[in-house]
Amino acid sequence: MFHQIVKAVPNLFTIGNFLCGVLSITFNMSGFIEVASILIFFSAVFDLLDGRVARTLKVNSEFGVVLDSLADIVSFGVAPALLFHTIAAPSILTSLAFIIFPTMGALRLARFSVKPTIGYFKGLPIPAAGLPLAGMGFFSYSNPWITLILAILMVSPIRVKKL
Amino acid sequence: MFHQIVKAVPNLFTIGNFLCGVLSITFNMSGFIEVASILIFFSAVFDLLDGRVARTLKVNSEFGVVLDSLADIVSFGVAPALLFHTIAAPSILTSLAFIIFPTMGALRLARFSVKPTIGYFKGLPIPAAGLPLAGMGFFSYSNPWITLILAILMVSPIRVKKL
Repeated sequence: MFHQIVKAVPNLFTIGNFLCGVLSITFNMSGFIEVASILIFFSAVFDLLDGRVARTLKVNSEFGVVLDSLADIVSFGVAPALLFHTIAAPSILTSLAFIIFPTMGALRLARFSVKPTIGYFKGLPIPAAGLPLAGMGFFSYSNPWITLILAILMVSPIRVKKL
Repeated sequence: MFHQIVKAVPNLFTIGNFLCGVLSITFNMSGFIEVASILIFFSAVFDLLDGRVARTLKVNSEFGVVLDSLADIVSFGVAPALLFHTIAAPSILTSLAFIIFPTMGALRLARFSVKPTIGYFKGLPIPAAGLPLAGMGFFSYSNPWITLILAILMVSPIRVKKL
């Protein structure tokens, strides 16, 4: 029983990450762009903590890894793309960047799930792509080229050292 | 080379599912509730097709399964919950149902990834929970109790026959 509760602790952080992503979208819908942006940063804090808590408590689980990907696609894929879409001037390039960004994020997450790398990441991790968009969003700045470059970096073969 | 292209075909359907979910959110944000609702049904069509196409072409892959979950959490978890949130009268119950629905959807998807069941589903599958919300959304109808019941059915131990 006690072990079951301890096992659930990291997943509560992951759900925190997920819900901050969902709430970011609702605040964005209500026009609170800064709040929407800050919530994506909160997601990142939860995302950093869930893995560390799991390792500290020695309760890493496959369930936790899958849940983490599901949270990440919402918090660092869809929510930042929607923030970009709200701020950016409408154009074909904006629409393209808006569609490509979360799609590349999903492909990146699926690839990492199937072929996890140890000690380094292959391609920019999705939080590292979503956070710059959230930061730019906080200052009501958007740039479709930066969005596209971040999207492509996620599925690129570049190596990124793990934090 | 040819095999690589054939292998990618079901994933294109899954990306279709994912993008219809993302677009549902943007149309919802712009006030086009009916379009947002119909796009969730389009997601369901893509979702039905991806698995069938993969089996027909004999190119089932672990990558495809993970990508499918990532699409499903957006199209049948977050997008229908946002549709419900847009329509429903603000209340504590509405906020609760709005938060619980996609969270239970994520837990359902993660549990199925770790412990897949053969021939039947344990708990209501997420498309079967998201589609009634989308259907209700089309008629601008919302009910927090129905939303909560659908959410709980996803993580319940009930058995649902596979289509």
